[in-house]
Amino acid sequence: MTAIHARRRATLAALLPAHEVDAILVTHGVNVRYLTGLASSNAAVLVRADATATLATDSRYVETARRVCSDIEVVEERDVSGALLPETGLTGIEADHMSVAGYFRLGGHLVRLSGLVESVRMVKDDAEIDLIRTACEIGDAAFADVLPLLRPGLTEREVARALERRMVELGADGLAFDSIVAGGPNGAVPHHSPSDRPLERGDLVTMDFGALYRGYHADMTRTVAIGEPGGWQREIYDLVRAAQRAGRRAVRPGAALHDVDAAARDLIAEAGYGEFFGHGLGHGVGLEIHEVPFLSPRKPERDTGHARLEDRVPVTVEPGVYLPGRGGVRIEDTLVTRDDGPELLTRTTKELLVL
Amino acid sequence: MTAIHARRRATLAALLPAHEVDAILVTHGVNVRYLTGLASSNAAVLVRADATATLATDSRYVETARRVCSDIEVVEERDVSGALLPETGLTGIEADHMSVAGYFRLGGHLVRLSGLVESVRMVKDDAEIDLIRTACEIGDAAFADVLPLLRPGLTEREVARALERRMVELGADGLAFDSIVAGGPNGAVPHHSPSDRPLERGDLVTMDFGALYRGYHADMTRTVAIGEPGGWQREIYDLVRAAQRAGRRAVRPGAALHDVDAAARDLIAEAGYGEFFGHGLGHGVGLEIHEVPFLSPRKPERDTGHARLEDRVPVTVEPGVYLPGRGGVRIEDTLVTRDDGPELLTRTTKELLVL
Repeated sequence: MTAIHARRRATLAALLPAHEVDAILVTHGVNVRYLTGLASSNAAVLVRADATATLATDSRYVETARRVCSDIEVVEERDVSGALLPETGLTGIEADHMSVAGYFRLGGHLVRLSGLVESVRMVKDDAEIDLIRTACEIGDAAFADVLPLLRPGLTEREVARALERRMVELGADGLAFDSIVAGGPNGAVPHHSPSDRPLERGDLVTMDFGALYRGYHADMTRTVAIGEPGGWQREIYDLVRAAQRAGRRAVRPGAALHDVDAAARDLIAEAGYGEFFGHGLGHGVGLEIHEVPFLSPRKPERDTGHARLEDRVPVTVEPGVYLPGRGGVRIEDTLVTRDDGPELLTRTTKELLVL
Repeated sequence: MTAIHARRRATLAALLPAHEVDAILVTHGVNVRYLTGLASSNAAVLVRADATATLATDSRYVETARRVCSDIEVVEERDVSGALLPETGLTGIEADHMSVAGYFRLGGHLVRLSGLVESVRMVKDDAEIDLIRTACEIGDAAFADVLPLLRPGLTEREVARALERRMVELGADGLAFDSIVAGGPNGAVPHHSPSDRPLERGDLVTMDFGALYRGYHADMTRTVAIGEPGGWQREIYDLVRAAQRAGRRAVRPGAALHDVDAAARDLIAEAGYGEFFGHGLGHGVGLEIHEVPFLSPRKPERDTGHARLEDRVPVTVEPGVYLPGRGGVRIEDTLVTRDDGPELLTRTTKELLVL
């Protein structure tokens, strides 16, 4: 695995001159893992413009580091940032991840950089896409296995735990994020935490969950009906489904991020529900559950250079409509941009399932 | 639940004058949760010296926030820090948690504070201890259930997944941290990630795992033998067990943190294994898996005021001996300081179990 990490470090190193730094001190855990293969809660790696690198970690991880990162220098030090800070030259730091306290402890000639490693991480190599695909397959299979259990009386929490248990049984290393299961009126809260509310006949139930597999994240959402849905329920379901389809169709290399968002959002707005879709259309997934690119109507706050999709970028497409006090619908797939059309990684049907 | 959060905010507010600030902008997720009850990935709370407070969160969480935090002002804003920054007066920020980028975006008269909310969180109320106790009970029960499955041929990863699955079945909301299962020579790596290495006869197997329950963490470690252990294995097991007992006995309100550490460490050093115990003796547990106080031979890097244990502080006691290339032993309980002697929350036997 060292070759792939060396390639990633070289890609990063090539970006440094444009940011007028001689090196970058990478301290964000998943970024360290991405660049070295080492998963540690206390490690940092300094990548220089000539693509050489030094990793620092403490006694708990140093033996693993020497094995996993055999192609770079490894130093054992508890203060991993201090150990790596060069005495000369300009060093970039990860300003979105380093703490204020850590920054002022370091001193030195620091240049605040944002999103540099993330920009390298955005386009995935085949091995990464394979892991995300497996994570998505686990989610699909868990959903299929848990679906027959859904019935009035089962609580949101029980549904969440059943999905999570099944994902682990199917090989997940853990959960990609805290599962959302929201029945009836709770469906109006996009990030509802599973409660002890039992499912009831007449509910729409939104389930948003995903598997973690070898560090990589999957993300899917389905909304099902417990018993025959009423007219308003079917109306918003069909609308969200159409918007989700439009969003997926807009996912292609070169597409402007806000155009992808608009493809779905405009449909919802035209139907008069625009004010009930308050979040972005989707986000990148990889070593983090939310990463660049963000499909959103907003311009990026900072100029991260990610205004358009590229090839081989896994993203979610997840429009929703949330009616306060009544309920909501969200439908979400994970897919990968491809030159010849997106590859759909979430394979579960988007027909309205009536249980 | 609002009364308990109001009390916590009042305790925090009373600390502000000594730090010469008029308010503190709390941005660290678990600290926001501790002070308001709201669990959100994008929320902040401003607590003023007069103990009034305002919470900010975005559209995804605002409905929940208005319900959960009904006793304080709630504002809906995506930029939660910017929304709360007072125009006048001195505002403290959480320098260990706020990012460098966030700090420079905020501007204003900011005072960098460290560990203030954490110092309030250190001493737990009864409701918190009850949750940690339940989390520990889940870990004990999962360990008892998985123990009969351990046999040569089972991989570390399979053992980890079995423990994790059982914890969730027993009511855990998730994992307190990434489980460690380390067999044979892998036991020499304190933070080894479970691999596909099968257990072998003659292995010591270290299992470090814990349940997450309603936001609170448990942490336990046991080392067992697969088949009759050799002389060196029994020697380090007995040593670590004696050191762990000595450490537990030193846990009392008023004890200096480094004295608790020394109680265990000195035993290991006297036996000639001092260099093979490279980490601190233990740490606080609560809404985070690692929190103050830290039982360590070091003086605190910053003056956090936590040099001694107090009453009702849950901590781990987890000495270990790690012999590179050969294997290791770690034994860990979670316990709570009490005036009349510590309450042991981890109840699993510390006899060497030979399977």
